[in-house]
Amino acid sequence: MLNNELTKLLNIDYPIIQAPMAGGISTTALVSSVSNYGGLGMIGAGYLNPSQTREQIREVRQSTTNHFGVNLFVPTAFQRSDEKIRLVNDLLGPIHDLLEIEKNEIPSPTYESLVESFNAQVAVVIEEKVPTCSFTFGIPSIEIIDILKKHNITVIGTATTVKEAVEIEKAGMDIVVVQGSEAGGHRGTFIHDHQESLVGLMSLIPQVVDNVMIPVIAAGGIMDGRGLMASLCLGAKGVQMGTAFLTCVESGAHPLHKEAILQSTEDQTILTRAFSGKWARGINNKFIEDLHEHETSLPDFPVQNSLTQGIRKAASIQNNSDFMSLWSGQSPRLAKNQTVEMLMKKIVDEAKIIKKN
Amino acid sequence: MLNNELTKLLNIDYPIIQAPMAGGISTTALVSSVSNYGGLGMIGAGYLNPSQTREQIREVRQSTTNHFGVNLFVPTAFQRSDEKIRLVNDLLGPIHDLLEIEKNEIPSPTYESLVESFNAQVAVVIEEKVPTCSFTFGIPSIEIIDILKKHNITVIGTATTVKEAVEIEKAGMDIVVVQGSEAGGHRGTFIHDHQESLVGLMSLIPQVVDNVMIPVIAAGGIMDGRGLMASLCLGAKGVQMGTAFLTCVESGAHPLHKEAILQSTEDQTILTRAFSGKWARGINNKFIEDLHEHETSLPDFPVQNSLTQGIRKAASIQNNSDFMSLWSGQSPRLAKNQTVEMLMKKIVDEAKIIKKN
Repeated sequence: MLNNELTKLLNIDYPIIQAPMAGGISTTALVSSVSNYGGLGMIGAGYLNPSQTREQIREVRQSTTNHFGVNLFVPTAFQRSDEKIRLVNDLLGPIHDLLEIEKNEIPSPTYESLVESFNAQVAVVIEEKVPTCSFTFGIPSIEIIDILKKHNITVIGTATTVKEAVEIEKAGMDIVVVQGSEAGGHRGTFIHDHQESLVGLMSLIPQVVDNVMIPVIAAGGIMDGRGLMASLCLGAKGVQMGTAFLTCVESGAHPLHKEAILQSTEDQTILTRAFSGKWARGINNKFIEDLHEHETSLPDFPVQNSLTQGIRKAASIQNNSDFMSLWSGQSPRLAKNQTVEMLMKKIVDEAKIIKKN
Repeated sequence: MLNNELTKLLNIDYPIIQAPMAGGISTTALVSSVSNYGGLGMIGAGYLNPSQTREQIREVRQSTTNHFGVNLFVPTAFQRSDEKIRLVNDLLGPIHDLLEIEKNEIPSPTYESLVESFNAQVAVVIEEKVPTCSFTFGIPSIEIIDILKKHNITVIGTATTVKEAVEIEKAGMDIVVVQGSEAGGHRGTFIHDHQESLVGLMSLIPQVVDNVMIPVIAAGGIMDGRGLMASLCLGAKGVQMGTAFLTCVESGAHPLHKEAILQSTEDQTILTRAFSGKWARGINNKFIEDLHEHETSLPDFPVQNSLTQGIRKAASIQNNSDFMSLWSGQSPRLAKNQTVEMLMKKIVDEAKIIKKN
């Protein structure tokens, strides 16, 4: 019943993609479980180096013979402002003291090093014959898209507006994920200003569908069969779920992160660039509140990401959720502590019931 | 096929409510056409006095024998700050000059006068035996809800979060409209801060449905049969549409307002309190840009509303859309210049096709 153009293209049973969640959340267990239960598991390789990417691909292959994918971050040029770095180090000082750590002296990667790593990751994806590759934060070069497609790799882009989706299609990508304002984690916007690109899925999906021919996957606040069927009604061919999988047993999210989501309500998430320099949605906490009035003055990604790395790491180790990035979409009330198998089964069963009524 | 608990409760053929759009948009022609074609037309009486409200009710009755409703604004206490008024008058000075008008000397209504008018409007609704009454910006008193229900008037509340929906149900209201972040015009938030209450419908609908027993109507960016079916999948029993009806022939919106929507894209709307003191979504224009950095310093509603009244009125008369309030939801690409009959037919036909597939 849920077979369609998208499931055929991706070689999956159900049009359900596990959102690639970088930073340890998309474990091999999570990725392979989703693929084993009929969806598409995605390795979140945004913060991995090329050899870590290869390693996880091989691990996933040991746990599933089904299709899965890898997600990469398209590197974007950024500014490094000493003044902004100073401002942030002043703001972070009291937090370093509270957590009893030294401030982070390791400089952030350069744009050139990010490009080199990205290109090497693409080579790994091709060498390891990964069937699907998705991109966030921009559109890779035509050369990269062409070589992936020459190797029969399905290429997926991420858009937050119609304009971005149209560019993704023009560049020759096969599928576009449209990320609504409901979505947790980092915003994939690459053309627009932040405020212009916060479009709810009820609006975003049909307007994108009317403007591209490639299949559209909806992402943002989708947690169950209701969201899947609603997205299909709006014209999408499938859904990508982040928060729903993040609280699954197999996910590598910190227990306090999972717990925060399970205890939160839809009015408790907020958009911030305080953790990384890129806008992202998470559960409001002390770290976000402390930096709130300086949101627009913070350094770009990846500079800010490096500056906060020590704090995020120490907070995790010390089980202090005040200073952890608690990424979450706007549907935390619907999150459950369950296995991937249970979640997949529930989504499909619910979808079938809705279809009947 | 589209008959359900909601259509029975409201005595309509299709679970489609025309959003009450105050300030001249919800004309008698619009309201009665929607009711005549099987939906529920709603008089936007927020800015009408009691006798204007009675007049429009009687006009609508001359054009339809079907059910319709009246929407009222629940008065809320506000602060009048001379400092803020001075700030705004300084900001508006150049705009008054540009439009060649004097600044508005008429003070805004007092809270007491708003309460008196509101109570009188409720009395009119009862005397005129209007079958449906909806409320925005808060919950009327238990006494008002009780007396409306004693007169067999169906009472509808407006919520932007689960908490607000639960309060509406607790107060004894019959139905709740949940307004997603996609929605155009004024935000109906009454419990939360602005940022906390911008929840996309893909998240908002199912979380509200899981927490109340009363029927839920979804509002925000819904323009066609796809949005209707998607909302039903998410658990709503019907939809409320604003922008879709605003660009209809029968609507009283200014031609430049309709044109602006028809030409806009989903990334061009913005949230502002510059026109009225209450947060609202509209197409970005010069007026909003001029006041943008002062958004949080502006006076409350209705003070700001009175201060900008002269400008809005002159801009309308002078056909200057730079200074008009161009309310719109996030789906302007889907707006069409059509009759209510065409729109209703398209919605229902599309819904039936989606149901089949």
